Amino acid sequence: MLVLITYDVNTETAVGKTRLRKVAKQCVNYGQRVQNSVFECNMDAAKCRQVKAILEGIIDKDKDSLRFYYLGEHYKNKVEHIGAKPGFDVTEPLIF
Amino acid sequence: MLVLITYDVNTETAVGKTRLRKVAKQCVNYGQRVQNSVFECNMDAAKCRQVKAILEGIIDKDKDSLRFYYLGEHYKNKVEHIGAKPGFDVTEPLIF
Repeated sequence: MLVLITYDVNTETAVGKTRLRKVAKQCVNYGQRVQNSVFECNMDAAKCRQVKAILEGIIDKDKDSLRFYYLGEHYKNKVEHIGAKPGFDVTEPLIF
Repeated sequence: MLVLITYDVNTETAVGKTRLRKVAKQCVNYGQRVQNSVFECNMDAAKCRQVKAILEGIIDKDKDSLRFYYLGEHYKNKVEHIGAKPGFDVTEPLIF
């Protein structure tokens, strides 16, 4: 299923900037960055629980937020992109 | 239907910062800000076309991006929030 992860991390302090880096670094392991704070992750429920637990352990819940949007299996016509940096199809392997 | 609008605006220049302000200002007219660059808009297809056209007119398509996620009518169990600044229920009127 496609899970959209969006986050806001308060970067007013150095520790906030560190949290932001850590959140982004983890998200990269689970999906495709489509915008600065938006990741599309094609994963099953177990992986989703895993990344959720990891991210919850990183953020400061009084200052930062995470949102998860569950787009299901049939998401191709539910997503539209306009402008720079179009997202990659996360179901297609990257060929190098 | 619930439409999620996410955006990345390149703010390296003063005109970029102006674009960002304009995009946010327009989104506020159509929905609820749930994170810094994430809005949830409960609107019909006509309103959606309208805001899309307005935002397309503001952004620089070489530098900025917009993404629209169509979450349909039954979205309550498709969204999960963790941490600060929880979103408001966009279907409930605000009582002052």
